[in-house]
Amino acid sequence: MKVKLILHVLSILLVIIAAFMLIPAGIALYCGETASLKGFLLPIALLLPLAGAVFFLTKNNLEKNMSPRDGFMLVSLSWVCASALGALPFYISGAIPSYTDAYFETMSGFTTTGASILTAIEGLPWSILFWRSLTHWLGGMGIVVLTVAIFPLLGIGGMQLLKAEAPGPSVDKITPKIAHTAKYLWFIYLGLTVLETILLLVGGMNLFDSLTHTFGTMATGGFSPKNSSVGYYSSAYLQWVITIFMVMAGMNFVLYFKMLTRKTHDVFIDTELRAYLGIFILASLAITLSLMHNRIFEGFFKSLRYAAFQVASILTTTGYATTNFDLWPDFSKIILFLTMFIGGCAGSTGGGIKVVRIVTLFKLSLRELKRLIYPRGIFRLRLNRMVMRRDVVSVITGFVFLYITALLVTTTIVAAGGHDILTSFSTALATVGNIGPGFAKVGPACNYAFFQPAIKWFLSLAMLMGRLEIYTFIILLVPEFWRR
Amino acid sequence: MKVKLILHVLSILLVIIAAFMLIPAGIALYCGETASLKGFLLPIALLLPLAGAVFFLTKNNLEKNMSPRDGFMLVSLSWVCASALGALPFYISGAIPSYTDAYFETMSGFTTTGASILTAIEGLPWSILFWRSLTHWLGGMGIVVLTVAIFPLLGIGGMQLLKAEAPGPSVDKITPKIAHTAKYLWFIYLGLTVLETILLLVGGMNLFDSLTHTFGTMATGGFSPKNSSVGYYSSAYLQWVITIFMVMAGMNFVLYFKMLTRKTHDVFIDTELRAYLGIFILASLAITLSLMHNRIFEGFFKSLRYAAFQVASILTTTGYATTNFDLWPDFSKIILFLTMFIGGCAGSTGGGIKVVRIVTLFKLSLRELKRLIYPRGIFRLRLNRMVMRRDVVSVITGFVFLYITALLVTTTIVAAGGHDILTSFSTALATVGNIGPGFAKVGPACNYAFFQPAIKWFLSLAMLMGRLEIYTFIILLVPEFWRR
Repeated sequence: MKVKLILHVLSILLVIIAAFMLIPAGIALYCGETASLKGFLLPIALLLPLAGAVFFLTKNNLEKNMSPRDGFMLVSLSWVCASALGALPFYISGAIPSYTDAYFETMSGFTTTGASILTAIEGLPWSILFWRSLTHWLGGMGIVVLTVAIFPLLGIGGMQLLKAEAPGPSVDKITPKIAHTAKYLWFIYLGLTVLETILLLVGGMNLFDSLTHTFGTMATGGFSPKNSSVGYYSSAYLQWVITIFMVMAGMNFVLYFKMLTRKTHDVFIDTELRAYLGIFILASLAITLSLMHNRIFEGFFKSLRYAAFQVASILTTTGYATTNFDLWPDFSKIILFLTMFIGGCAGSTGGGIKVVRIVTLFKLSLRELKRLIYPRGIFRLRLNRMVMRRDVVSVITGFVFLYITALLVTTTIVAAGGHDILTSFSTALATVGNIGPGFAKVGPACNYAFFQPAIKWFLSLAMLMGRLEIYTFIILLVPEFWRR
Repeated sequence: MKVKLILHVLSILLVIIAAFMLIPAGIALYCGETASLKGFLLPIALLLPLAGAVFFLTKNNLEKNMSPRDGFMLVSLSWVCASALGALPFYISGAIPSYTDAYFETMSGFTTTGASILTAIEGLPWSILFWRSLTHWLGGMGIVVLTVAIFPLLGIGGMQLLKAEAPGPSVDKITPKIAHTAKYLWFIYLGLTVLETILLLVGGMNLFDSLTHTFGTMATGGFSPKNSSVGYYSSAYLQWVITIFMVMAGMNFVLYFKMLTRKTHDVFIDTELRAYLGIFILASLAITLSLMHNRIFEGFFKSLRYAAFQVASILTTTGYATTNFDLWPDFSKIILFLTMFIGGCAGSTGGGIKVVRIVTLFKLSLRELKRLIYPRGIFRLRLNRMVMRRDVVSVITGFVFLYITALLVTTTIVAAGGHDILTSFSTALATVGNIGPGFAKVGPACNYAFFQPAIKWFLSLAMLMGRLEIYTFIILLVPEFWRR
C-alpha cells in the first residue's frame, strides 16, 4: 500500500472540498447567518493547514504509479473523509446537533442517495441547505471526475482509478487519455446543470431553488430544500423539466460525448439506453393506468405526469417526490418497488444494479434456455452488437450476487433494531441503491431520523457500498487484499 | 414434437395416479364416507378406460427416443395433468366446492408446496385429507422417480428426462443405468418414510397423523391434517423428530446412496451439505437468541426447539408451523425471510434456489474480488474439490436470474389483485419457492382462500414453475422451442 501517495491525493481532495465550502460560506455572510458562517469557516481554517502540511510532506519522492489496491483504498477513503469533513458545517452550526446525523446526511449527499435525517427542512439556514445540495452535485460526478481530471496533472495515471471508481461496467475508452475524457464528462455535467437551472428559472422557480434542485437532479441525489420535495411546486412545466433531466442524468454520459462528436449511430444502437427508456415508459404507463383506475388523480395527463415523475425519480435513484407515493394503490407501489432493483445506466450518476447488468443477465438466461433446446449450438452474448467477453459476464454475475447479498445483510441489520420487514427491506433497497426514500417507515413523507445511531452508521456504510459499486468497498474485507 | 410418445407416457402416469387413488378410496369405504368414495371412484372409472385407450392407441410404432424438447413438454404436462386429475376427488366429493380451489390445492400438493386454500381442515373426511397428503408424497419424489423407473422398462431412455426433471443441477450419475438409480432413490425415500412413521407412532401420534405428517415431511410439502399444523402436538419429541426428518428430506438423496455404499468420504467433503447444515444451525441459533431476548418462550431449549423447527421448515421449503411465526419479533422474521431465498439441497425434495447454487455464486463473487486484486491471476471455481465447468456456472447464473425474475413477476401479478407489498412478495417467495406459508395475509395462521380465482390459477403456475426448476417451464415460452 502506497500510504504516502494515498495521503497526498486525499489532502488534495480535502482542499477541493474546503474550497467548495467557500460558496455556502459566502451565502452565510450575505444572509447574515453567523452560526453557519462559523460552521463553514472553522473546518476550513482547521483543515486547510493540516491538508497543506500533508500535501507538502508527502510531495517528495512520490511513487506515481497506483496499484489497483491503492486505487480501491483511495476511493473508499475519499468518500469516508469527504463525508467526515463535509459533515462539520452541519454539526458546528448546530443545524444538525448530532454528529452521527450530520455524517449520515453528508454521506447521503456525497453518495447521491438523498436519504435524510432532517424532520423540518425549511427552517434551516440558506447556506446549510445550499451545502447540503452541493454535496450531491460534488458527489454525483464531481468528485469522481475532478479527481480523475486532476490526478493526471500530478502525473498519476488515473487508469486503474477510473476502473475502480467509474459507476458501471462499461466505461468506454472514449479518448486514450483519461484526463481528457474526464474533462469532457465534466463539461457535459456542467452544461446540463446550467441548462436545467435556466429552464427551472424560466418556469418561475427562484434561483436558490433552481440551483439546489438541479444539483439534486443531475447527481440523481434527491435532497430538496422543501419539506414536501418537488411536490412544493405544482407547476406541470417544472415537474416535467425535472422528470426529463432526471432521465437524462440516469443515462450513460459517454453517450452525450458521442452525440457531440456526431457518433449518433452508436447512441441509436445502444442496448442499455433502449432498455432503460423502455423500462421508463412501460413503468410510467403501468402506474398511470393504476392511478387512473383508482381515481387518485383526474385525467390521463395528470396521472401520467405524477407517474412519470415518480418512475424517473426511483429508476434513476434520485428520490424526489411530488406526492406521497406510499399512499398509492398497491400495484403502483409494486412497480416502483421493482424499479428500485434496477437503477440507472452505467456511466450515469444513478445508483442501483444498473440497466446494463440486468440486460446482460437477461440475455444470459435466454442463451441458457436456447442451449437447453439446442445442446450442441453455440450462442454468444452480444451487447451493442459486440460479443461480450466471458470475464466481463463473470464480473457482472458476481456484482449482482454481492449486491443482493448486501441488500439482505442490510435488511437483517436494520431488522435487528426492531423494525418491520417492509421498512427494513426498503431501507436496504433505498440506501444500497442510493435512492433515498423507500416504503413504510422510510416512505417519502418520512425520514431516517428515528433509526438508532448504530444503524445510522451502518446505513452510511451501506450507501457508500452501493455508490462504490459494492466491489470497491467489499474488497477491503477480503483477506487477500491485505496480504503482501 | 413426438406427440404420440408424450401421450403414451402421460397415459401411464394417469393410470399410476388413479391406482394410488384406490388407497383413499379404501379409507372412504372403511370410514363410510360415501361422498368421498364417489369422488375417488368416479374419476377412476372415467379416466381408466380413457387412459387405457390412449395407451393402446399410441402403443404401436412408438419412436422410443426422446428429444430434450419432448422431455420438457412431458414433464410440464405431467404436473398439469396430474393436478387436473388429482383435483377431481376434492371437487366431486364436495370437500372443495370450487374446481379452481381444488386445482390450486392439488398443484400445491404435487409440487410439494403446501399452500392451502382450506379454512377449516379438521372437518374434512379422512379419505380426502389422506389424499391431500398423498399428493405431496407422490409429487415430492414419487412421480419423478416412478416415471424415471418405469420409462426404462418401456425401453425409453430416461436420460434427457432426468436432466430436465431432477431437482437441482448436480444429479450425479451414481450408476450408469438411470433406472437403477431411480430405484435406489425410491427405496431410500420409502425407507425414510417408514422410519419417520414408526418414530412418530412411538411418540404417541396415531397412525393416520403419523402417515400424513410423514408424507408432508419427506416431500418437504407441508400439508397437515390439523388446523394448527404440527403445533397441534406440543410433544418436544414429536417436534424434534419432524425437525430432523425435514432437515434430512432437504439433503441430497444421492448422499444417502453414497452412505449406503460406504463412500462416506464423499459425504464428508460435500460443500453443499456443509453449507446447508451451517445455515440451518446459524439461523436456528440466531432466532433462538431473538426469541429468548424478547421472552417469547421460556428458556433456551424451548426457544431452540421452536426456532430449529421453523428454520428447518422454511429452509427446506416444507412449510409446517408449530406456532404463528408471523407474530415473532422482526429480527426472527427477517431470518426466516432470508432462508426463504435459499431452499434445500439439489437432489432433495426441497424447493427454492437450492444451497449449491447460492454457494456457487458466493464462490464466483469471491473469485471476482480476487481477480480485482490480482488482475493476472488464474482462479478456478471448485465444488467438492473438483473444478466446476464454465457452462455449469452459466446455467446456475441464468437460473438464479430467472428465479428472481419469476419472483418479481409473481409479486406484480399478485399486487395487481390489490394486495400489499409484503403479502405479494411473500406469496411469490412461498409459491415459486414451494414453501407454502409466507408473511402478512399469507402467514402461517392464514391461507390462500381469499385470492381472486385468476390469481389462484397464476399461483398454480408459479408453484409449477418453481418445482420444475424454472427452466423446464419457461422454456415452453421461448419461440425457439416451437420452431422446427
